Amino acid sequence: MTQLNRRAFLRAVGATGGAGAMLATMGALGLTPTAQAAAAREAAYRAPRTGDFTLTGRSAASVVVLGGGIAGLTTAYELGKAGYRCTILEARDRPGGRNFTVRGGDTTTDLYGHRQTARFSDGQYMNAGPARIAQWMITLDYCRELGVPIEVFTNVNADSYLYNESAGMTSPMRYRAAKADVFGYVTELLAKASDQGALDQALTGDDRERLTEFLKDYGDLGSNLQYTGSSRRGYSVWPAAAGTPGVVASDVPTASEIFATGVGRYFAFEFEFDQAMLMFQPVGGMDRIPHALAGAIGNQKIRTGCAVTQVTDKGDGVRVTYTQGGRTRSVEADYCVAAMPPNILAKVPHNLGSGVQTALEAITPSSAGKIGLEYRSRWWETDHRIYGGITETDLDVTHIWHPSYGFHGERGVLIGYYNTGANADSYAPLTPKEREARAVAAGVKIYGEKYRSELATSFSHHWRQFPYQEAAWHSTPGGPDHPRYKPLTEPAGRVLFAGDWLSYMDAWQHGAFSSARSAVTAIHQRVLA
Amino acid sequence: MTQLNRRAFLRAVGATGGAGAMLATMGALGLTPTAQAAAAREAAYRAPRTGDFTLTGRSAASVVVLGGGIAGLTTAYELGKAGYRCTILEARDRPGGRNFTVRGGDTTTDLYGHRQTARFSDGQYMNAGPARIAQWMITLDYCRELGVPIEVFTNVNADSYLYNESAGMTSPMRYRAAKADVFGYVTELLAKASDQGALDQALTGDDRERLTEFLKDYGDLGSNLQYTGSSRRGYSVWPAAAGTPGVVASDVPTASEIFATGVGRYFAFEFEFDQAMLMFQPVGGMDRIPHALAGAIGNQKIRTGCAVTQVTDKGDGVRVTYTQGGRTRSVEADYCVAAMPPNILAKVPHNLGSGVQTALEAITPSSAGKIGLEYRSRWWETDHRIYGGITETDLDVTHIWHPSYGFHGERGVLIGYYNTGANADSYAPLTPKEREARAVAAGVKIYGEKYRSELATSFSHHWRQFPYQEAAWHSTPGGPDHPRYKPLTEPAGRVLFAGDWLSYMDAWQHGAFSSARSAVTAIHQRVLA
Repeated sequence: MTQLNRRAFLRAVGATGGAGAMLATMGALGLTPTAQAAAAREAAYRAPRTGDFTLTGRSAASVVVLGGGIAGLTTAYELGKAGYRCTILEARDRPGGRNFTVRGGDTTTDLYGHRQTARFSDGQYMNAGPARIAQWMITLDYCRELGVPIEVFTNVNADSYLYNESAGMTSPMRYRAAKADVFGYVTELLAKASDQGALDQALTGDDRERLTEFLKDYGDLGSNLQYTGSSRRGYSVWPAAAGTPGVVASDVPTASEIFATGVGRYFAFEFEFDQAMLMFQPVGGMDRIPHALAGAIGNQKIRTGCAVTQVTDKGDGVRVTYTQGGRTRSVEADYCVAAMPPNILAKVPHNLGSGVQTALEAITPSSAGKIGLEYRSRWWETDHRIYGGITETDLDVTHIWHPSYGFHGERGVLIGYYNTGANADSYAPLTPKEREARAVAAGVKIYGEKYRSELATSFSHHWRQFPYQEAAWHSTPGGPDHPRYKPLTEPAGRVLFAGDWLSYMDAWQHGAFSSARSAVTAIHQRVLA
Repeated sequence: MTQLNRRAFLRAVGATGGAGAMLATMGALGLTPTAQAAAAREAAYRAPRTGDFTLTGRSAASVVVLGGGIAGLTTAYELGKAGYRCTILEARDRPGGRNFTVRGGDTTTDLYGHRQTARFSDGQYMNAGPARIAQWMITLDYCRELGVPIEVFTNVNADSYLYNESAGMTSPMRYRAAKADVFGYVTELLAKASDQGALDQALTGDDRERLTEFLKDYGDLGSNLQYTGSSRRGYSVWPAAAGTPGVVASDVPTASEIFATGVGRYFAFEFEFDQAMLMFQPVGGMDRIPHALAGAIGNQKIRTGCAVTQVTDKGDGVRVTYTQGGRTRSVEADYCVAAMPPNILAKVPHNLGSGVQTALEAITPSSAGKIGLEYRSRWWETDHRIYGGITETDLDVTHIWHPSYGFHGERGVLIGYYNTGANADSYAPLTPKEREARAVAAGVKIYGEKYRSELATSFSHHWRQFPYQEAAWHSTPGGPDHPRYKPLTEPAGRVLFAGDWLSYMDAWQHGAFSSARSAVTAIHQRVLA
């Protein structure tokens, strides 16, 4: 079977038999695990096309899509490939939903009535919502398909800081130094335990030898299996010309001291399946994705400023009423895809049954906030030699992000906090100025006075307190396939549901894209049936 | 003392007292270690300026610079800031030396007589020489000063491969899976050893508790302290919409099996002080740096095609003879900076003394080669979901680099081998076609048939066999401050030496930049004295 035929075959299997059957088939075809994974992804979804109707005598239907976030836009985009007539109703004045890139001039008003207009300079922005994309996520497939250029998102940096105030740290520690010390002592302990026979039961002699060799290398241990510091910590004077061999940073803590700082808790982050580097972002802002989707759909099909007020399944179609500019309007279509946040949808009257309503209400909203701090200079690059990456703290600002774009530029936007839960909720009621002051006070502890003195402007955003969202993401206890949510994972008459909250990748665009694909496939199969 | 005054003061101290005195002073001023490091870097070098001559009655001298690599260009650039009249003699037809970016149309002929013309497409390139820059390196300061835009160099990627054929591996393993397994078992072993009392002597109870907490998190251990696989390994079916919870890659090896693969040997690389991510590269090719330097110097001051044939210290000046277009010419100047490769310089007649000659001959050249493979598609992105990063092997190709630029583009250039020493020497005598065939055969083992079938063109480069270089880098046993090299680290009459080979960062541009700064400072102090 040629490569091309194999692919076509896998597509056909995938279209009818589901991913399980397809994977078994691929194994039988002798594809490697790597090629299998790629083929699985490719075969698992097949976009509707106009040609699908040729043999069936059917034709594309009309679909009203509630919500112009990633799931809603993707629904219209994919159905549009087969000629479905889609209308998107979006409550805000822009598509994208939580995919929101804030630039100079953007204005928001939160539920507290805090009104802000961003004063960022030209070319400066903050991604208030999603900001990073893993290599395996289909978000990247959409970037490729839509021609949205991407660049590295700097999710981990050896030169950024760790700072645990509650552990008594009075100055930050670089990731590289923290790793060298923690791994140094951990490997020393294991190498010595092995040396003293503690692993004789668990491992063969060969295994122990290989283990010790690995540990010495991984922990930079001396021949006596001791950790006494390492150039991996960095230098107080970096090696340079003859006469300057460099001075290794020599403030090596004891094992007890470094364990007590708790810095090791941050290291596993970069191993996680959804966070491991390399990560990516669209060049110029995450909203390049919804803008490209909207352009491909046709902007005239996206009605902004339209808040949905009622959803009625009429049996042979769906009627949706909404308000636009103070007037009540309605739209009718063969099908409806409800791609709004579940907590907002739960407030909209409908006739989809109490099962739907109970399921929607069982999904709970989560809090998250970000503040963008624009600085007059990129002092973190010049003074701290930090080019991107995240500083981790136990302060209420939690994560501080250095920008992944505009290196060496005149100005730059730090994310002064990316916090969640109670930390986010504690900042939300403050005025924007108060949020800024509190975030800056935290940053000064780590970076020094320039964190305050170089600040030009700021913009803060809290999703739980943002109209038409009221959540950064959602919690579906038990997962989206729990029987509790069955009324949402199946069509409710002619209404289907989609969103990252109906996926296993909640809070990620990948979840929204794949959920929309599910809804699209379900509608298309029904229309073709 | 204000920040500005403190800086000026530090500069003054740095100019007279050296880095050691300066660091002590900074400590006395109460600067934080972070600010200290930044100030040390800033104060350690002070570029000559025209104003320096105002009080002394002296004026800028003339300098002939041998070699238009990074050290030579930097010498002329820095001296030019104070009005020195510099002439650079460069043997090749372009400045940059080993900083060599190969693009379509570039032609080389090696010492075997292999002539190649690169057929890379527009926008595609390979950095045949230096390719990555760490955040602390002054190379980045020159990028900033010269307006050379930078982007992330993808030095480490969780999704790239590890492949040790000699250990019996028959298919590659992803970094993320290898790390999950190695760290999983290593932490399990230590956690259990601790649990069984093996660390009771070495650690307090508090320490052991903190250690166990770290190990469980770092190794993703279960509550029974066992490693049984982890989502960190990646998925055979990635989590997506409801109905697709994902299937974690389940081919978990035993501890003995994973240790036997030897994949753990690659993990320490990313901790090294010069290799830890984040790393950077100039946008568009590393040679943006020498081009920017040449532009700032003034191209008319750089004489290309000029091979130095004799260096004569005349006591009151220096005369350098060279050939250009078959004719012998000469140039005279007050001073000379010899910034040629030491192995080439050792072949040039001079009157600088036998000490200089012995020292030059004690420096030995090293081998390295690279092949750029341009492909008609970026199949590593679409089929393997690898966006950048390095695949590590025990094959003679050693390192395979995925490109750090042009993501999602139509074509791309893989570095099919970056090898050194005997591996490089084994490829060098082959014809370019033979090198390509051998490199592709190795790649097919890891990536499959597309590594061959999608190939469009290739270009290979071996520094040891490249005229006017004959080395990828150099070895100075004992380090550049060993007494053996003293005749090179001091002026030989009116001749000074510069190059990465005279630094503690051999093979890095940082070494060339800092060595040039040393020579510049020495000349300027002498002229001002």
